[in-house]
Amino acid sequence: MKKVVLAFSGGLDTSFCCIYLSRDLGLEVHSVIVNTGGFSSQELAQIEKRAYSLGVKSHAVVDETQNYYDSSIKYLIFGNVLKNATYPLSVSAERVSQATAIANYAKQIGAEYVAHGSTGAGNDQVRFDMIFNILIPEVAIITPIRDLKLSREEEIEYLHKHGVEFSAEKAKYSINKGIWGTSVGGKETLTSHETLPEEAWPTPATSNEPRRITIDFEKGEPVALDGERIGAVRVIQELQAIAQPYGIGRDIHVGDTIIGIKGRVGFEAAAPLIIIKAHHTLEKHTLTKWQLSWKDQLAAFYGSWMHEGQLHDPVMRDIEAFLQSAQETVTGKVIVELHPYRFVVIGIESAHDLMSSKFGSYGEMNNTWTGDDVKGFSKIFGNQVSIWHKVNAK
Amino acid sequence: MKKVVLAFSGGLDTSFCCIYLSRDLGLEVHSVIVNTGGFSSQELAQIEKRAYSLGVKSHAVVDETQNYYDSSIKYLIFGNVLKNATYPLSVSAERVSQATAIANYAKQIGAEYVAHGSTGAGNDQVRFDMIFNILIPEVAIITPIRDLKLSREEEIEYLHKHGVEFSAEKAKYSINKGIWGTSVGGKETLTSHETLPEEAWPTPATSNEPRRITIDFEKGEPVALDGERIGAVRVIQELQAIAQPYGIGRDIHVGDTIIGIKGRVGFEAAAPLIIIKAHHTLEKHTLTKWQLSWKDQLAAFYGSWMHEGQLHDPVMRDIEAFLQSAQETVTGKVIVELHPYRFVVIGIESAHDLMSSKFGSYGEMNNTWTGDDVKGFSKIFGNQVSIWHKVNAK
Amino acid sequence: MKKVVLAFSGGLDTSFCCIYLSRDLGLEVHSVIVNTGGFSSQELAQIEKRAYSLGVKSHAVVDETQNYYDSSIKYLIFGNVLKNATYPLSVSAERVSQATAIANYAKQIGAEYVAHGSTGAGNDQVRFDMIFNILIPEVAIITPIRDLKLSREEEIEYLHKHGVEFSAEKAKYSINKGIWGTSVGGKETLTSHETLPEEAWPTPATSNEPRRITIDFEKGEPVALDGERIGAVRVIQELQAIAQPYGIGRDIHVGDTIIGIKGRVGFEAAAPLIIIKAHHTLEKHTLTKWQLSWKDQLAAFYGSWMHEGQLHDPVMRDIEAFLQSAQETVTGKVIVELHPYRFVVIGIESAHDLMSSKFGSYGEMNNTWTGDDVKGFSKIFGNQVSIWHKVNAK
Amino acid sequence: MKKVVLAFSGGLDTSFCCIYLSRDLGLEVHSVIVNTGGFSSQELAQIEKRAYSLGVKSHAVVDETQNYYDSSIKYLIFGNVLKNATYPLSVSAERVSQATAIANYAKQIGAEYVAHGSTGAGNDQVRFDMIFNILIPEVAIITPIRDLKLSREEEIEYLHKHGVEFSAEKAKYSINKGIWGTSVGGKETLTSHETLPEEAWPTPATSNEPRRITIDFEKGEPVALDGERIGAVRVIQELQAIAQPYGIGRDIHVGDTIIGIKGRVGFEAAAPLIIIKAHHTLEKHTLTKWQLSWKDQLAAFYGSWMHEGQLHDPVMRDIEAFLQSAQETVTGKVIVELHPYRFVVIGIESAHDLMSSKFGSYGEMNNTWTGDDVKGFSKIFGNQVSIWHKVNAK
Repeated sequence: MKKVVLAFSGGLDTSFCCIYLSRDLGLEVHSVIVNTGGFSSQELAQIEKRAYSLGVKSHAVVDETQNYYDSSIKYLIFGNVLKNATYPLSVSAERVSQATAIANYAKQIGAEYVAHGSTGAGNDQVRFDMIFNILIPEVAIITPIRDLKLSREEEIEYLHKHGVEFSAEKAKYSINKGIWGTSVGGKETLTSHETLPEEAWPTPATSNEPRRITIDFEKGEPVALDGERIGAVRVIQELQAIAQPYGIGRDIHVGDTIIGIKGRVGFEAAAPLIIIKAHHTLEKHTLTKWQLSWKDQLAAFYGSWMHEGQLHDPVMRDIEAFLQSAQETVTGKVIVELHPYRFVVIGIESAHDLMSSKFGSYGEMNNTWTGDDVKGFSKIFGNQVSIWHKVNAK
Repeated sequence: MKKVVLAFSGGLDTSFCCIYLSRDLGLEVHSVIVNTGGFSSQELAQIEKRAYSLGVKSHAVVDETQNYYDSSIKYLIFGNVLKNATYPLSVSAERVSQATAIANYAKQIGAEYVAHGSTGAGNDQVRFDMIFNILIPEVAIITPIRDLKLSREEEIEYLHKHGVEFSAEKAKYSINKGIWGTSVGGKETLTSHETLPEEAWPTPATSNEPRRITIDFEKGEPVALDGERIGAVRVIQELQAIAQPYGIGRDIHVGDTIIGIKGRVGFEAAAPLIIIKAHHTLEKHTLTKWQLSWKDQLAAFYGSWMHEGQLHDPVMRDIEAFLQSAQETVTGKVIVELHPYRFVVIGIESAHDLMSSKFGSYGEMNNTWTGDDVKGFSKIFGNQVSIWHKVNAK
Repeated sequence: MKKVVLAFSGGLDTSFCCIYLSRDLGLEVHSVIVNTGGFSSQELAQIEKRAYSLGVKSHAVVDETQNYYDSSIKYLIFGNVLKNATYPLSVSAERVSQATAIANYAKQIGAEYVAHGSTGAGNDQVRFDMIFNILIPEVAIITPIRDLKLSREEEIEYLHKHGVEFSAEKAKYSINKGIWGTSVGGKETLTSHETLPEEAWPTPATSNEPRRITIDFEKGEPVALDGERIGAVRVIQELQAIAQPYGIGRDIHVGDTIIGIKGRVGFEAAAPLIIIKAHHTLEKHTLTKWQLSWKDQLAAFYGSWMHEGQLHDPVMRDIEAFLQSAQETVTGKVIVELHPYRFVVIGIESAHDLMSSKFGSYGEMNNTWTGDDVKGFSKIFGNQVSIWHKVNAK
Repeated sequence: MKKVVLAFSGGLDTSFCCIYLSRDLGLEVHSVIVNTGGFSSQELAQIEKRAYSLGVKSHAVVDETQNYYDSSIKYLIFGNVLKNATYPLSVSAERVSQATAIANYAKQIGAEYVAHGSTGAGNDQVRFDMIFNILIPEVAIITPIRDLKLSREEEIEYLHKHGVEFSAEKAKYSINKGIWGTSVGGKETLTSHETLPEEAWPTPATSNEPRRITIDFEKGEPVALDGERIGAVRVIQELQAIAQPYGIGRDIHVGDTIIGIKGRVGFEAAAPLIIIKAHHTLEKHTLTKWQLSWKDQLAAFYGSWMHEGQLHDPVMRDIEAFLQSAQETVTGKVIVELHPYRFVVIGIESAHDLMSSKFGSYGEMNNTWTGDDVKGFSKIFGNQVSIWHKVNAK
């Protein structure tokens, strides 16, 4: 019997796939779920139970949280990546990490097929297809949902026929939870002019008391929260637990999908937004003008190309090398104040702070250069444009 | 007697210059103040009164507000320019506009000298010197404050000797108010780790009631507020009057000065921040992916080069041509909700909205393309990276 | 009977399509050939004769040469576009122009189908498909060669059965001639390590006598050759007639195809290479540093995006607006010397030359600035990096 | 007696400095010459002799050739850096390397002053001043030639008075020879419209016989010539010895100086131009599209910033990290044919060649993807622009 690895979430589509792959296609189904920080152990246990109830030969949980941080989130922080100045790529980066882990799993167990439950209408199909084509070209891809184009009702009916009951009720909002933010879709996000109602946000905004926290960065990585060195993954998770109940980091993003249409999605991502602004502030104190400038350009591309599922293009390694090099001096403490629905970066402390008053404070005279130096500078700095205006005077 | 045009603000430094230029240098002083939207008519009248009390031959007020919008702010909106993702260039753009207006005024009245009161420690001296060198190279520049390096006390003493009294008391916070935002400097901004106290902000945060407003954009320009077509300058001014009392748009920016050191400045800029995010959201609905991408790159440079006083480089005209072209379809209404200290962009309505459900909604199937099309797309889209991995497989 | 517009070249593939579309699909075939400067009137007459001999209902020749120049070549010159510093996009730009003209023709005659003879292995199919989808989405695309995957022999046999004789012999080198260069493919270009033999180049290298020519540019466009104002299209054509017999502008390019693989192609393009280097030299004398820098970045993208068939993305209009603006002062004469297999740009003359000795010659002192000015400049210009080294000293 | 390190070339200006620094300023003169590959041992011996004849306390020769390659040329090769598509930065990069070596030497011998012979009219003063300010801020800079503004005649007269004879005759062309090319200035380069005469080029063009050579690259570095592994520095030197007598790599560059004016310079640089085109060709076969694209953008900046003397900005380290990463697969052999005044890159051989026919040849069908896949790709690849045209149809 031929093996198929199925990316399994426990939802209707992938439950359908379980049955369909074994009964209709006669394959030995090995379901797998990749946890990138969005699932609790109870949720994982429930999903495993469901997988076996659907008759899979084996079910595996791959914990990719640290890997996901190391291979993607870290660089999204280094690059202060917010797509179109808004969205921390919560879902996009996660899918790439999941697809990569599934490809590795399929190779490891020697599967001849790999299946995913994407429809033909979104970004995920491209990310999964493409990463499988790249990493495991010898493994054939099966996409029952995309190919069969069944309605929700037809899938439920099919499952029912095979003795599996599934509620016909659909959640009002579709939620995707991950360590780098939670996305929220609903009827409002299908319009261009409505926002999500309070009830749609997964985390209720209940915290009211302003609170100061500090984040320590070491070569660009957030390593400590409130002085406690717990490592980057836990900084993200614990900061999220503290800050999301303030309602911080909620927004709606409209962006370009890989398939060319515009898509709109709500998200809550308190920790990512706080960490990115804190990190960026520290960089503004410690990097030179051109480091900041080139980082921005490269990171914007890096974020887009990641979003489009292209993490395995070697250019991404090259950009990571740049970003890593640029973090050499990005070490210090950032002080942040949390308030309901917003936060303020208070300031930073760093041994690499270029604002160091030892070498001249802005607006104050000092003994390193003189007003005459600046006079000369202004003359030369404007020289070419001055000549241009003389040559082209009318 | 030779004429000198003096950029006059009514403060201690330029008051000193008035006396010094006429008494010590024997020049005929023509003071001028350029209003870029930051002064009320009472303030302007007071400044004029002071100028004549200091013995100037003439005093002129040049109203540059509309010009400033047309030549700078408009493009900062088109480009969604926030320096280092933070600062709307409130002061930088204004200085360039003022220096340009003063150069034109000096040319107009046939002055042989032009004087400004900048010290040797900041950005403004570079902007003034350079723009004068470019636009009126035949007019010599005099900078008494920079050259004489007098202390505040020495200037007061000098004025006193010439019969002019000036209070020795210095304001706790230095404020620069303009139509595109107000900057605030104080002892906290000289550190890296402290923020400004509530009392430092010029506009008290007194509004509490959430309020919805709408802004209509036409080819990228904000032309109507709450449906009333009042033109861009008034949209900015009235939105600022409504939104600043919410405490919206307060932040601290640390950035690269023209002279190479890092400078830190507080600012309140409710209208600029709201308009930029509203405009950007409208663009995300109406522009193609590569329009958004290239606009970002060009606008980042445009903002930096403007900040460095280089508005008269012809490359700025070229970038403006790009930005103007890209605004062709940026027409529509943006709905914004104001809350204390923050705002939310609710959504947009536009005839140019590429999210138009007529041509496919994200996540829904449609009749323009099929799942098979996307399958083929994914194959080809990942082709090169797939070949790379095969060729370089270990 | 339903109308199909067929892009017709007179070759085997499109001859097959003629018969197939009418006999097998029962369509009324309207063949069309778009001349972008590569065909003589004799060649066009022969192709027309062949079309009618294949039973087309009508045959049209669309002369796009001037349009092609106005909508594409002009901007390739403004941008000095050489893909990967080598290839003037001879074929890529032409295909886009041809596909656009065919789309317009199909719309004009009210066709319900449009057909092209591309195989499934190259770039052209993408350009044709995509531009038809964009400009005439209501017209269905038929691609018999790609779909039927017939061998050369099968096509000849099919034609023979329908009374049309076609020689089985295949040309040793496939040549595509256009106003912006001629491409040459052969067995050597299928390897990575061989070059084309002398006999493969369409134009024999027979001219030996060095010759000076001049090109006058006006706002970036080449308007005169050797002082004679004949307009850009004729400058290109006549320069090509003079310079190609020197063997100038022959090279092999290896580049990224739209479908992700690498492709290698020989080309001869004397006029494009001479015009681009001449134009670039004139720009180096007349544009500011940042104009040159941004032009390069935008033009590299413009060339790539054109190559990928995306001329109808509105971002291309925005880039064209930038490039046009940047040509404002690119007016002057360029002197070029032709030699066997190479050319030398001797120099330029321009009223906009920023090297004008009136305002300072490099390496000579002058009265606009002093050594002290440069001293001050050097101090400030290196200020940030100097502070960085002090702060980060080990 | 206080120590001064003098950058000494043996020419009139630095000979003057020798005497002036010791006699007029009373300093102990330690002359130093940095060889970056441009001097023979005879030349160095002569310069040393002259230094001692001028009474220096010590004279040192610092051989920086390998360092210069490792810290600069290597990255110029990785980046295929030709300023404005023309100039390999022969002089600019060398000066930066020399200034850095002199700064290190001054620190090493504990000098209190450092002196250079630059005038106030060129780029070199900025590079020297700035790099000294950055690397040895505690050492004061003395620039007698710039400060005293003496004429050639006055310097000769001054030397004569101090018993040193110097010929009044000036060379017709000023030559600067280095491992990365030789610059040539003369009366023609002071105009915009004349080229250098045959006699001005330092290396006569005497080789006529076409010759094939091969260069082996390993991770981007040229390590072997004609199969002999001699290391990069010797590859450059020996290739230069072979190729320059063909007259290859002669051109004139007009570019932006650091001080804002345009400067024009002739150069002969056979080895740099051959190595860069060979390297670029190898990259076109082995790198992905976006690696090539980003390399171009970063390298253009890298070259400019190097030209402006800013090698010590940490952003340069970041770019080097990118470039180094991108060279991972740039290993292979490039075949080049030399002809009088020109060369042809014949082709390449590489285990990393993405054109590998194993994975599909351009223009040929294969079994990795189908015509239908490309159809789907074309549909989706043009999707957004297609929607844009529908939404914005008039």
